[in-house]
Parts: sequence; structure tokens; C-alpha cells
Amino acid sequence: MGVEERRQQLIGVALELFSRRSPDEVSIDEIASAAGISRPLVYHYFPGKLSLYEAALKRASDDLAARFVEPPTGPLGARLLRVMRRFFDFVDEHGPGFSALMRGGPAVGSTTTNALIDSVRQAAYEQILSHLEVADPPVRLELVVRSWISLAESTALIWLDGRRIPREELEAQLVHDFAALAAVSAAHDEEMSEILRAMLRYEDPEGPFGQLVTRLLALAT
Amino acid sequence: MGVEERRQQLIGVALELFSRRSPDEVSIDEIASAAGISRPLVYHYFPGKLSLYEAALKRASDDLAARFVEPPTGPLGARLLRVMRRFFDFVDEHGPGFSALMRGGPAVGSTTTNALIDSVRQAAYEQILSHLEVADPPVRLELVVRSWISLAESTALIWLDGRRIPREELEAQLVHDFAALAAVSAAHDEEMSEILRAMLRYEDPEGPFGQLVTRLLALAT
Repeated sequence: MGVEERRQQLIGVALELFSRRSPDEVSIDEIASAAGISRPLVYHYFPGKLSLYEAALKRASDDLAARFVEPPTGPLGARLLRVMRRFFDFVDEHGPGFSALMRGGPAVGSTTTNALIDSVRQAAYEQILSHLEVADPPVRLELVVRSWISLAESTALIWLDGRRIPREELEAQLVHDFAALAAVSAAHDEEMSEILRAMLRYEDPEGPFGQLVTRLLALAT
Repeated sequence: MGVEERRQQLIGVALELFSRRSPDEVSIDEIASAAGISRPLVYHYFPGKLSLYEAALKRASDDLAARFVEPPTGPLGARLLRVMRRFFDFVDEHGPGFSALMRGGPAVGSTTTNALIDSVRQAAYEQILSHLEVADPPVRLELVVRSWISLAESTALIWLDGRRIPREELEAQLVHDFAALAAVSAAHDEEMSEILRAMLRYEDPEGPFGQLVTRLLALAT
């Protein structure tokens, strides 16, 4: 194998192990053994476990950011629901590693890992703004979008802790939460209320946003 | 000064410094100088900066958890609004230290600091459940409360980044967000819809939850 090929293979093996168990519990010996090479050879390609962890995390981050990309066609609620499905696919595939990373801790709290987490959050933020077709977001829209992203993260972490709620329900709920947080902000601010109206203009009554309104009205009566 | 008295004084001085700047930027020399003692004497009481940081964080955590305590009387929305005011007071007083802590990083991502953050989240969670008078929370209620707590954290962090929205607006908005997230969950689940009805039973039409409904109805018309 060439140098770059071997590096990529090691990153893949490491990502697989770091996804299934907390990175604290994965040793270089284990990575070497899973890759079918010697421990010194691992160190030949990566100076230590942290650099291999960061390379694996970079690959996972690129993978997750790619899943946010959604064509700008059709109602917004349906687009967001498709993205939520792909997000939960990712969380499902990388459960223990995702939990360990997002909960922080000595093995994962490096400057590089934090920068990678931030870059994924920024990719999610920019994707949502592009779908809302808002080029210069007012500060309250920024708040709604960024705080909803953190809500999606914490919802996924709580789901991973025992998987006690079907993920399909949480995917739909997060889409509804986005509309609800935007509506609360719109109740406080005229500019947000115009953005909310534009956002809901092309919604299908049978789509996720339409369903939410129907269900909330049923609750109120 | 006695040993315990000196320790407490150092913790107070350190907390003050760690609150105003990122803990990474605060040196032991600076803490010694602010406390009016020598650097070796600081090390006599605390083996290193991390142990002093953890002691300061413990004091701040106890302080924050104490601010969550609210008498169980009057409408829920008004109680939650008072707690949000005290939460933003805390965030205001400890801004840079709070940001650095919650954003993680090498200096603050120890097992002890993560356990302290979790203990404050748990205190917030238990307080809210006690106000809802739910002893054995269904899993969907747990999700709403815990994910709302993370929403409050991220909202506070975004507020600290430039303070571009008046904090009073965000305090009211977070109370509204709680009702909105509970309503979304209630739209998916019968048990949650009963909890929501019980929660809103004694609300004042002029209180925060009543205001939200009025504003949302105005948006819809």
C-alpha cells in the first residue's frame, strides 16, 4: 500500500472503532490489530492516538456535513425532515463515539476536535439559511437556527441513551420544534414574523408543518 | 488566616478572574497577586491551576443551582420567568468563564468539570419536575425538559456573543420556548398532552404563557 492509501485505511479502521466505543476505551494496539499491521507501523503514519482520532473525526465531520445538503426544491418542512432522517442515520451509525465526543472529556476535548464540531454546526447553520433564502440573517433568526441546532444535538444524545423513543418520532418532532421556535421568536419580533410567513408559504397541509398546526389546533379544542 | 479561610479566599479570587476571562488566560501568578500572596503559597493550598479551577467551578455550580430554587406557588410561567432572570444574572456575572466552560477546550474539559456541569443540569431538571409535580416522568417529558435546558444554555451562549438581543426578551422567549416544545411533544403523544393541560391550568392570561397564546393567535390571523 502507498502512504496515503495506508493512512486512509487506518482512518477508516479507527473511525469504525471510535464510533462503536468511547474513544477513551480504544487503544492503538487494537487499531493496529484491526488494521492487520504492527503497533510501530501505526505510529509511523500517526504520531499518537489523538492525531488518529482527529483524522477519524475529520472524516466523520465531512460525512455528516455532506448529509445536510438537500436540493432547494419542494416544501421546507419536507426538506428538513429528510435532513433529520440522514442526521439520525449518522447518529445511529456512530452512537457511542458521537456521545463521547459531544459530552466532552479529556480524550476528545482538544482544540482541533472543538474546531471540527464548530465547523459541522456552521455547515448546518449555512445550509438552513440557504433553504430559507435569507442572505443577511437578522440576529434573531441566527439565534433560532443556532439554538435549534443545539436542540437537535441534545435530542440525539438523549435518544442514544437507551433509545426509548422511536427515532422517526424524534425526526418529525425536531422539524416541528424548528417551526415552534421560529413561531415563538415571531411572536416577539415583526421581522421574524415576516420570515416565518415566507417560510410557511409553500407548505403542504399534509406535510410536517401542516400536520403540526392540525395537531396543535386539535389540542386547543 | 486559617487553612480553610485561606482556601475559601483563594477560591473567591480565582472565581472572579476565571469569570472575567477564559481560564486558559489566567495564570497562577495572577491569582497569587490578586490574593496578595506568593505563588508558592497558592501551591501550598492547591496543587495546580486545574484543582483551583475545579474548586472555583464547584462554588459557581452551587451558586447557580441555588438560583434555580423557586417557591412552588403561583402560575408556572411566572415561576419559570423568575428563574430565567436569575439564570441570566448568573450568565451576566460569569460571562467569559461561562462561555469558555460550555464551549469546552483543553483547560476545562476534565472529568471533574464535566461532572459539575452535569450536576447543575440535573439540579435544573429536578427543579422543573418538582414544579410540574410529576414524580415519575414519562420519557417524553424527560426529553422536553432536558433538551429545553440545553436550549437555555445555547441561548445564553449566543447572547454572550455580542449581547445583540436584550436579555429580558430572551428570558421571556425561553419561557415561551418551554411551552412550545411541550406543545409539540403533546401534539405527538396523549400522555404529554395531559401534562401540558395540567401545566397550563392555572396560568394567568396576562402571564408569559397567556401572552404567548395571544401573540401566536395574532400571528395566525
